[in-house]
Amino acid sequence: MTKKQTGGTQRQSAQQGVVTDAMRFVARRENLDPQFVRQEVALGRAIIPCNVVHARYGLDPIAIGIGFLCKINANLGRSSLSSTMKQELQKVDLAVRCGADTVMDLSTGGDLDSIREAILRHVRVPVGTVPLYGAMTRVEQPEDLTPRMMLEEIEKQARQGVDYMTVHAGFRREHIPSTKKRLTGIVSRGGAILARWMTAHGKENPLYEHFDDLCEIFKKYDVSFSLGDGLRPGSLHDANDEAQFRELKTLGELTLRAWEHGCQVMIEGPGHVPMNLIQMNAEIQQKWCHEAPFYTLGPLVTDISPGYDHITSAIGGALIGWAGASMLCYVTPAEHLALPDMEDVRQGVIAHKIAAHAADIARGRAGARDRDDAMSKARFAFDWEKQFQLSLDPERAREKRESVLSGKKHKEARYCSMCGPKFCSMQLAQDCKVREKKEAKVAVRS
Amino acid sequence: MTKKQTGGTQRQSAQQGVVTDAMRFVARRENLDPQFVRQEVALGRAIIPCNVVHARYGLDPIAIGIGFLCKINANLGRSSLSSTMKQELQKVDLAVRCGADTVMDLSTGGDLDSIREAILRHVRVPVGTVPLYGAMTRVEQPEDLTPRMMLEEIEKQARQGVDYMTVHAGFRREHIPSTKKRLTGIVSRGGAILARWMTAHGKENPLYEHFDDLCEIFKKYDVSFSLGDGLRPGSLHDANDEAQFRELKTLGELTLRAWEHGCQVMIEGPGHVPMNLIQMNAEIQQKWCHEAPFYTLGPLVTDISPGYDHITSAIGGALIGWAGASMLCYVTPAEHLALPDMEDVRQGVIAHKIAAHAADIARGRAGARDRDDAMSKARFAFDWEKQFQLSLDPERAREKRESVLSGKKHKEARYCSMCGPKFCSMQLAQDCKVREKKEAKVAVRS
Repeated sequence: MTKKQTGGTQRQSAQQGVVTDAMRFVARRENLDPQFVRQEVALGRAIIPCNVVHARYGLDPIAIGIGFLCKINANLGRSSLSSTMKQELQKVDLAVRCGADTVMDLSTGGDLDSIREAILRHVRVPVGTVPLYGAMTRVEQPEDLTPRMMLEEIEKQARQGVDYMTVHAGFRREHIPSTKKRLTGIVSRGGAILARWMTAHGKENPLYEHFDDLCEIFKKYDVSFSLGDGLRPGSLHDANDEAQFRELKTLGELTLRAWEHGCQVMIEGPGHVPMNLIQMNAEIQQKWCHEAPFYTLGPLVTDISPGYDHITSAIGGALIGWAGASMLCYVTPAEHLALPDMEDVRQGVIAHKIAAHAADIARGRAGARDRDDAMSKARFAFDWEKQFQLSLDPERAREKRESVLSGKKHKEARYCSMCGPKFCSMQLAQDCKVREKKEAKVAVRS
Repeated sequence: MTKKQTGGTQRQSAQQGVVTDAMRFVARRENLDPQFVRQEVALGRAIIPCNVVHARYGLDPIAIGIGFLCKINANLGRSSLSSTMKQELQKVDLAVRCGADTVMDLSTGGDLDSIREAILRHVRVPVGTVPLYGAMTRVEQPEDLTPRMMLEEIEKQARQGVDYMTVHAGFRREHIPSTKKRLTGIVSRGGAILARWMTAHGKENPLYEHFDDLCEIFKKYDVSFSLGDGLRPGSLHDANDEAQFRELKTLGELTLRAWEHGCQVMIEGPGHVPMNLIQMNAEIQQKWCHEAPFYTLGPLVTDISPGYDHITSAIGGALIGWAGASMLCYVTPAEHLALPDMEDVRQGVIAHKIAAHAADIARGRAGARDRDDAMSKARFAFDWEKQFQLSLDPERAREKRESVLSGKKHKEARYCSMCGPKFCSMQLAQDCKVREKKEAKVAVRS
C-alpha cells in the first residue's frame, strides 16, 4: 500500500499502515526495509521532517531516529551585525556539500522572511527554524510579544515550508527559580526571550499554554516539533541540574500531547556536559521522552577552548551519538566568539560528520565501517586518488598532500612528506611480504 | 629525606624511600603530596622522564601516570623531503607554548644528531626519540643494521640527554604471521624496520634479544622506556587483533624485566580503534602491563577523515584518557598526508589539550574543572579579556572575536557578532535578574 503526501503527517500515515514516498525514499537511501521505516515513524522513534509545502518544491527526505544513521545539522543565518543573504546562501551550499543532513536558518538580522524563503527554495535538505526569532523582529523587547504574534509567525513559517521548528514550549514559569544556582543562567536565546516575557508579565509560557494550537498548525503542514531546551546548561558547572531536568520532564509530557495530535517530535538536548555525564543524559531523555529522537547541541566537554569548540563539541557529539542521540547540531570554531564564516562552517560540519560517523561505527550500525575499510585498502595500496575520493573532505585532503609533494612523480609516490621513501612503514611492510612470497616460491621450486 | 639526582633512577630512589628534587617539583606543579609522587613512581604507576644529562642542562620534570593530570606529546622533526632545523625549532617552541608536555624528535632527514642536540638544549620539557631512526641513517636498508649499531645509537642518544626512548622490543619474530589478516599490515615505522630485519635474517628482534643490555644503558642515564607498539593497528579493521595483543602481552613481560633493572617504563598504545573498543584497550593494558603508564597515539575513531585527523584522534584520546591513559600523543591535520607545518602543530596540540583536559574532568581529578568554572563566570560577566586569558589558545580566541567586532565600543560589548545586542541570551537572562531584584525591592518598600 502506498500513498502520496496529499494529507496527514508522516506519523499519521505510518500509524495507518501507509508507507509514504518519503519513507520509501529514506529506506532506499539507508538500505533498509520500507516497513521498518514506517514502523519507526509510527512508534515515534523516528521522524521524517518533511513539510508538505517544501516537499512540493523539492525535498529529499531523511529520517532522524535511533534506527538510522546519525545525522548532523548546520546552523546558518545572518545576524544584525554580520553577513548578507548571499553569504549565507554560500554557506548553506558549502554545509550541504560537506555533508550537513539538515540546515537551520537562525537568522536574527536582515529581512528574515526573505532569507528563509531563499534558503527553502535553494536546498533539498530539511530546513529548521526558531520562529521566536522572526516574531522578535516585530517588536523592540521580548515583553512586547503577544501569544498571537508567536502563533502567527509559526503559521507563516509553516506555510513557507519550514520542515521542523524549535519551540521552547517545555520551559515553564515555575522552572525559572531553578536557574538561580547556575554559573551561566539561560544560554538558549529562545529560552532567554521567554524567561523575560514570563518575568515581565507574571504569566505562564505562551507556547506551553497554546501548545494544542501549535499542534494544529504543525499537523496541517506536517512540521516536525523540535522541542527546544530553553534551560540547557551553558557550562560544565550547570550540566545535569534541576533546571535542565525539570524542563526535560515537561518535554516528555508535551511529546505525548503532540503525538496525540498526530505530529512528529524530536527533543533538543545539551549543551555543555562533562564526558562522564553524557550517557546518563541520553538514557534519561529516552526514558522520559518515550524514545522520541534526541537532537543535541554538542555537547561540549570543556568550557576552555573558544576558537576550537568544534573539537570540544565533536568529542561530546561522538559520545552522545554512540549513547543514542539521532542528530548532532554542529558547533563551529566561532562558537562563543562570532558568527561563523565559510571556513568555520566547513570545520564545524566535518568535525560533526566525524563524530556522527564514529558513533555509527561504535553502535555497530550495518555497513557503517565499509567506507573506512575501503579507505584502509586504498591506503595500503598507495592509491591516493581513491583515498581522496573516500575522504570526508576530498579537497582539503588533496591540498594538504600536494602542498608539499606535487608533480607527477610525487603524485603516485608510495610515501608522503611525513616519512619520505626510506621510512614509510607500509612500504617497508609490503616489501617484507614480497620478499616472503619470493622465498616461498624458491622453497617450492627447490 | 631528600636527594639530588646524582645517581640511580627515579624509580630506584622512590623504592629506597627517597623523595628526589624531580618528585618535589612534580608535586608542587600538580598540587600533590611529594610522598604520593614517590609512591606512584616506586609502584611503576608513574614515570618521571628525566635523563640525568638533560636534567643538568635544564629540565622541568613532569610525571606521567594515572594519578597525575593527563599529558600530551607533540611529535616533531624534519623528514628527508620537508622542513629544516630552524623550522622544527620554531615548531617545538609553538608546541610547548600551546601546552605540549613533552616533545618527541622523530626526525628522519637532515643531520639527526645535530637536530636532536639542538632540541635537547632548547627546551625544558622532556624529549623523546625513536633511536632506530638514527641507526637507519647509517645504512641503506633495514637489513643492513646490526644489533651493535642499534645499541650504539641508543647509548649515544642517552648520552645526549634524551629523556625517553621508544624501543619496539616487544615485537617478536613469531608475531609477524599474525599481521597477514590485516588490511594495513604494519604502520609503525620502527615496527616495519624490525619486521624487515627479522624477515631478512630469519632471526629474533635484536632489541628483544638484547633487552638486558638496553636496560643497563637506560638505567645509567635514567632514560625511561617507552615500550613501542610496532604492531599497533593502522585501521579500524585491524583494531584489537591478535597481532596487537600478542605484542602487548610481551610488553607486559618486558615491563617486569625493566623494573628489575630499576628502569622507568611506559607502554605505547594504538592507533586506530573504534570508540566501543577503547575502554577494553585501556583495561587490558593496565592488567597485562602491571599498571605501567599508557601512552597512546590517538586512537583515531574513524579512517575517513584525512585533513581532520586531529579531531578523529581527539575523540579517541579523550575516551582513552578517561579510561586511564596517562599521555596522549598528538595527531595533526597532516596525518596520513604530509609532514605537519606550523598551523598543523598548533591545531594538533590544542585538539589534544582539549582531549586530555576533558579526560581529567571526566575522571574527576581534583581541581580539573576550576579553569572551566572561571571561564563560565567570565562568560556570564562578559569579561572578554579574562575569557581570552583562560582560553587554551588566547591568541586565536581574540582574533576570532575581533575579526568582526573591533574598536573600543565593541571590545566591551555585552554580545558577540553571533547574536548581536538584541538576541544575546545571557544579556537577556541577566536583565531578568535585574528586573526581579528591582521588583523585590519595590515589594519590600511597599
